[in-house]
Amino acid sequence: MTLAEQLLSGDRRALARALTLAERGGAEAHALLAAVFPHTGAARTIGVTGPPGAGKSSLVAALAAEWRRRGVTVGIIAVDPSSPYTGGAILGDRIRMQGLGGDAGVFIRSMASRGRPGGLARAADDAIALLDAAGFEIVLVETVGAGQGEISIARSAQSTVVVEVPGLGDDVQTLKAGLLEAADLLVVNKADRPGAEETLRRLRAMRAIGLARHAGWEVPVLPAVATTGEGMGEIIAALEAHRRYLQSSDAIARHALERAAQALNDAAGELAHERLRADEQAYRAALDEIANRRSSPHAVAARLLALGQPPS
Amino acid sequence: MTLAEQLLSGDRRALARALTLAERGGAEAHALLAAVFPHTGAARTIGVTGPPGAGKSSLVAALAAEWRRRGVTVGIIAVDPSSPYTGGAILGDRIRMQGLGGDAGVFIRSMASRGRPGGLARAADDAIALLDAAGFEIVLVETVGAGQGEISIARSAQSTVVVEVPGLGDDVQTLKAGLLEAADLLVVNKADRPGAEETLRRLRAMRAIGLARHAGWEVPVLPAVATTGEGMGEIIAALEAHRRYLQSSDAIARHALERAAQALNDAAGELAHERLRADEQAYRAALDEIANRRSSPHAVAARLLALGQPPS
Repeated sequence: MTLAEQLLSGDRRALARALTLAERGGAEAHALLAAVFPHTGAARTIGVTGPPGAGKSSLVAALAAEWRRRGVTVGIIAVDPSSPYTGGAILGDRIRMQGLGGDAGVFIRSMASRGRPGGLARAADDAIALLDAAGFEIVLVETVGAGQGEISIARSAQSTVVVEVPGLGDDVQTLKAGLLEAADLLVVNKADRPGAEETLRRLRAMRAIGLARHAGWEVPVLPAVATTGEGMGEIIAALEAHRRYLQSSDAIARHALERAAQALNDAAGELAHERLRADEQAYRAALDEIANRRSSPHAVAARLLALGQPPS
Repeated sequence: MTLAEQLLSGDRRALARALTLAERGGAEAHALLAAVFPHTGAARTIGVTGPPGAGKSSLVAALAAEWRRRGVTVGIIAVDPSSPYTGGAILGDRIRMQGLGGDAGVFIRSMASRGRPGGLARAADDAIALLDAAGFEIVLVETVGAGQGEISIARSAQSTVVVEVPGLGDDVQTLKAGLLEAADLLVVNKADRPGAEETLRRLRAMRAIGLARHAGWEVPVLPAVATTGEGMGEIIAALEAHRRYLQSSDAIARHALERAAQALNDAAGELAHERLRADEQAYRAALDEIANRRSSPHAVAARLLALGQPPS
């Protein structure tokens, strides 16, 4: 059996190998993805993002535990661009604390920005496709919401959950304006702390002045205490409502086209990058040519890529 | 005279038109850049970044005023990816408050992420090259430091100034770890506020445990009050010291090669993106093919790009 076939049959070790391959990128990874891609699309994909310290890993683990109690399988990708070490490790701890350590119905993978020249977004997208192809019913992607790149990863899922905590000041609210706009669902975690009511109230007020990404969906703002599991049922119910909303409107088709455009562009960028580096000597000479201002980056890129005529 | 020739002769209106062209991207922009590129490299480029509310615009304006007193010309690019409206407007206000409103030795341009498919980084890079070619001795790039993308824009300059303010809590410090690592020079603005000494002390302590980007350069941590001009002389002196450091080590050559690699990759990505969109009908069909999972993004990208053999 090929790796793709092993993966599609539900072999966990094949999945782990496939994810490693995808994180590295390159021709072999592209071929694997091409083989499994027609078998994707069944998973319910959910992004979870928010500022550092909001308790995203705890929330993801608590949600996974709740889904597992309902017999639903969950694949999780923890993306941490700033630190290749902490993100996945913390999530692993939280998952074990939820008693899911030996559960074959849960699969966790952490990813960092290292290793893949084409970028983390492309690698995360491929990882989602692999977990989807491997048969996980829910695929969760956790990213720290510290910039456009990370937010766009969370938004590549069908629904995006943005996690906040009580008591953040106004300065930070400004920082996170882009984060709030990405939310289909807002969760105020650590809602047993002082100031939770105020934060819930403020976020609900912001929602009223235009948080909704799409007409016809009012972003729910829900309290939660991930460490005790409080609020998980409500979050899952709200995600279910969002899924029904997506299906009843043209939003799900539009989302699929938006995702396709992003994925196509990322893939093209990655192929272009790989082509530039295909001949290391020519690449070094090209850098020297640009650094010494003999030719512009565009002129050199056009020459190295040697883009052919598009197929008609 | 061509637009490139007008620009090189110092014509300010030609510069403004060239910047508009570069922000939009496309074949005409690439040709213009190719023409002026051999005439770039003389400018001293400086990036200024930091969190929202740190007073970056005021600092940039105060530095510009100090350089103008010394007879040095200053071109400024204000990049604000989150908001296409506010960034440049605030900077314009600050520049007028410094009495530089009618000064031909100062040129300001604001840029937002809209308009150019290839991305803001590419557009900002081209804008730097155009101000450089137009003869500005200093080219400042101001960006809000809210994510990797924006930080990388600031780092595309030869020296990066990161602006902080007193009294930011620990949560926010975590958020900005990537920001501090980008600094060649740290400025604590609004240093007349309570807590400034503590912030200076803390940043100096962090520096000691490895803030420096390069061996042989200890990142200065300087107080400033941009609104009164306090500390501008010291910042300019520190930037001068950093320039000497760059020239005395191999850092400046290494930086030029790093910049060339980034610019080449960005340009290739942009060309690839333009190619994908060259035939709108084929592009739509390709998105449908991916959205309906008939082919993987890589397979479609490879077909549409029709990458030729690289020149040998």
